Amino acid sequence: MHKMHLREIADLVGGELLGDDVEITGAAGLEDAGAGDLTFVNRASLLPQLATSAASAVLLGPGMETDRPAIRCENPYRAFAKMLEFSLPNPDRVFPPGIHPTAVVAADAQVAAASVGPYCVIGAGTTVGEGTRLGAHVALGPDVTVGCDCQLYAQVTVREGCRLGDRVVLQAGVVIGTEGFGYLPGPAGLERIPQVGTVLIEDDVEIGANSCIDRATTGLTVVGAGTKIDNQIQIGHNVKVGRHCALSAQSGISGSCTLGDGVTMGGQVGIADHVTIGDGVKVGAKSGIMKDVEPGDTVFGVPALDVKETFRITGAMRRLPDLLRRVARLENLENLEDLEDKDDGEARS
Amino acid sequence: MHKMHLREIADLVGGELLGDDVEITGAAGLEDAGAGDLTFVNRASLLPQLATSAASAVLLGPGMETDRPAIRCENPYRAFAKMLEFSLPNPDRVFPPGIHPTAVVAADAQVAAASVGPYCVIGAGTTVGEGTRLGAHVALGPDVTVGCDCQLYAQVTVREGCRLGDRVVLQAGVVIGTEGFGYLPGPAGLERIPQVGTVLIEDDVEIGANSCIDRATTGLTVVGAGTKIDNQIQIGHNVKVGRHCALSAQSGISGSCTLGDGVTMGGQVGIADHVTIGDGVKVGAKSGIMKDVEPGDTVFGVPALDVKETFRITGAMRRLPDLLRRVARLENLENLEDLEDKDDGEARS
Amino acid sequence: MHKMHLREIADLVGGELLGDDVEITGAAGLEDAGAGDLTFVNRASLLPQLATSAASAVLLGPGMETDRPAIRCENPYRAFAKMLEFSLPNPDRVFPPGIHPTAVVAADAQVAAASVGPYCVIGAGTTVGEGTRLGAHVALGPDVTVGCDCQLYAQVTVREGCRLGDRVVLQAGVVIGTEGFGYLPGPAGLERIPQVGTVLIEDDVEIGANSCIDRATTGLTVVGAGTKIDNQIQIGHNVKVGRHCALSAQSGISGSCTLGDGVTMGGQVGIADHVTIGDGVKVGAKSGIMKDVEPGDTVFGVPALDVKETFRITGAMRRLPDLLRRVARLENLENLEDLEDKDDGEARS
Repeated sequence: MHKMHLREIADLVGGELLGDDVEITGAAGLEDAGAGDLTFVNRASLLPQLATSAASAVLLGPGMETDRPAIRCENPYRAFAKMLEFSLPNPDRVFPPGIHPTAVVAADAQVAAASVGPYCVIGAGTTVGEGTRLGAHVALGPDVTVGCDCQLYAQVTVREGCRLGDRVVLQAGVVIGTEGFGYLPGPAGLERIPQVGTVLIEDDVEIGANSCIDRATTGLTVVGAGTKIDNQIQIGHNVKVGRHCALSAQSGISGSCTLGDGVTMGGQVGIADHVTIGDGVKVGAKSGIMKDVEPGDTVFGVPALDVKETFRITGAMRRLPDLLRRVARLENLENLEDLEDKDDGEARS
Repeated sequence: MHKMHLREIADLVGGELLGDDVEITGAAGLEDAGAGDLTFVNRASLLPQLATSAASAVLLGPGMETDRPAIRCENPYRAFAKMLEFSLPNPDRVFPPGIHPTAVVAADAQVAAASVGPYCVIGAGTTVGEGTRLGAHVALGPDVTVGCDCQLYAQVTVREGCRLGDRVVLQAGVVIGTEGFGYLPGPAGLERIPQVGTVLIEDDVEIGANSCIDRATTGLTVVGAGTKIDNQIQIGHNVKVGRHCALSAQSGISGSCTLGDGVTMGGQVGIADHVTIGDGVKVGAKSGIMKDVEPGDTVFGVPALDVKETFRITGAMRRLPDLLRRVARLENLENLEDLEDKDDGEARS
Repeated sequence: MHKMHLREIADLVGGELLGDDVEITGAAGLEDAGAGDLTFVNRASLLPQLATSAASAVLLGPGMETDRPAIRCENPYRAFAKMLEFSLPNPDRVFPPGIHPTAVVAADAQVAAASVGPYCVIGAGTTVGEGTRLGAHVALGPDVTVGCDCQLYAQVTVREGCRLGDRVVLQAGVVIGTEGFGYLPGPAGLERIPQVGTVLIEDDVEIGANSCIDRATTGLTVVGAGTKIDNQIQIGHNVKVGRHCALSAQSGISGSCTLGDGVTMGGQVGIADHVTIGDGVKVGAKSGIMKDVEPGDTVFGVPALDVKETFRITGAMRRLPDLLRRVARLENLENLEDLEDKDDGEARS
């Protein structure tokens, strides 16, 4: 980033300057910050770590104190994120402007993009909107629509007929629109069910590296506006993902599932086919969901249950080996009693 | 699809025409169907949903009734799949015919393919059969064999010496033939065990997007004829997958495993190395298999057990917190009894 | 491999020749070995399988006997691995020497590589060291550093500013340096936290096909020297992986985790964010780690516990349905007793 004075930054993030109005040349996390850097502390428990940091200044939360130059503000992490924007590389360096002469663009494609990287392939009837940037080796099939101000990184594939809205980000290696896993048993083995639908990725969606979204059998597989999808995620055919969801890495959503709006999922979650997940549902990492989940629920485990129940069960499981011993002891007491009864009987006889 | 009359379709799928011989212009699932579309209902429970559909006609199973034009047939879903074929795009649009002038083909490669996309790279000594179509950016190493009528989508990599049979489909981003995870501890750290084997993908195999099949240490990693592999699957070195298996997304098979014929696996399954899975085994999603599975078994869970046992256990687990309370009550009763016994003893003394 | 005499091989691997000094033309595992091949047996239990092998000679462990030509040595598998090196293809066939004329190399990039494949793209300010080989379609962003004697296979992406040491191997489809999964909730939905850090891959690291390493928010995501990473692994932003670790396929490490040196992980492991794993920790396959693990520990399960505890629990779980019956029986006895007490009481009254 270019040099800024701390007061300038305080004004920018709406915070209160504490101490000297020093000059700032970068922004970095507590562990990485050096001289000239602005860092942040959003939990008082991190203040001791700040004491040993070389950072020149710090963004602090309400009520925190330090003897180095600081900006106190409502949400230091958000303020820090704002400052990071000044450290981003010039997009023209990452995506050199213009259509690279090696790009193979179909005669009837309409490409208004800001940048088309070397060796991109753009199919017949495909449209790419203004401000969109394509990295190297991006392959857009025929009849694809890419909106405005999108970023598609290297080696991305978008298959025929699929549509992306505006400001969509596809990280490297993303694959949109392959045929889903649909087969019927036939006399000669499994027979492909034709997948004639497509995929719709709505505005402001971001999809992580090497993730895959299958095309619908008919109609659309949909990822709703504002949803963020992490790396190596698999979304099956006919799935409808709602708006503003956040799905963490390596999760898989089987065919024909429906996710509501604002769903959040930890990593490595799996959802069986045809399941409906309500609005605002939270799913713990590694969960396996086999049936519908009501809006607002928080679920966890395999099979996924209410998170409190799963915690109760996993807590109880740790006591299970001991429980086996305790029950055996009770049975022994019973047996001894039986034995005593018998002894009594014998004594009586 | 082109316009067809319903009677024509009835003849094609071997079904019985009910009602008017209307004109059909497309095929779509119940949720997607509009005017002109043929849809299908394979469960009576979906008939209410049909009532509100805009579909012009419907494929119905035996014994079902509707007042709209319909075809009654043995298997409506299979008949529907047949109709979807008419809606597939012309393959010449997806894979333009001919060898694109930008393809880099080794002088001694033998390429009879129907389509080689822009920027494909075909190595020395490699053979590509008739009717095969390669998308953009496909990279075939040296000494690779690709059979006839295959489809390899964009960004596929097939490494040196690997072989594909006929009618093989590799979705975008598939990687065939990388070195597996084989190392030996040495004085300077882990040392690579050379992987000099290759991979054989037999006829009619389909492999999903971004899946990986590692080359064998020596000999072959094999995927048997007719087997279907979903997206993001990992198959380790020396694995032998049988014929007509169906492996769902994000599953991983460790090195030197053997799968029989007709094995089906849910998603996110993991199999430890050197395990043998018998013919016809069914594996539930998210299972972790640590030892051999007998032919015909259905297993589930981590570790994978007979599915009925796993269901019994997971059912019982939900009762575990309560069980802890119940055992504590029994122990309390014992203690009370002990106490009473002691009281008795004291009273007696 | 070229023809070698068995005595020559015995000298090479430091073993003892037993029987005839036959001619060897290849090396193969027990199941794959044919006439002319040298194979190996490292467990006496495999000797019966050797009896039916067509191998011309065998590497045997101490104390083992056979009537075919053999070399007895301390570690037959290590000796075999050494012999496999002679069967590796000429690297010039896999990576043809020189910079392919189709490579797009920025004017100010410094490329000393031994091989740059067709359609590689090398960004501005990027450096590639001597002896390094790049397969087809490798995309190096601007300001990337690749050391000497690396191998980057087809379709690899390395994003702007990331650095690789010497002798790094990136298998096909690897993605280094994408933005991690960092967002903050804002008024219009999730807002991207800029990720201005990069990735450092140290010397002798190998990364499997389609694996992804995210760039740091600030500073570095690090993979330590000598670490081996299998296929389809996801490593989040700001993660520090130590030296000489071995991470098996499909595992995921969430943001800001720290792994010590010599950590080994089975497949499909997940680690929650901000977790610290000590040196030498072993993690069983499919584990889910939610909190720090002490150096030297062996953990397994979801949530991951000491492996012995998890085995005790999973063993006990199989007895759980029976335990429910046993406790019900005990309760019934109590109830009968209560009943008897009541009867007694009534009898007394």
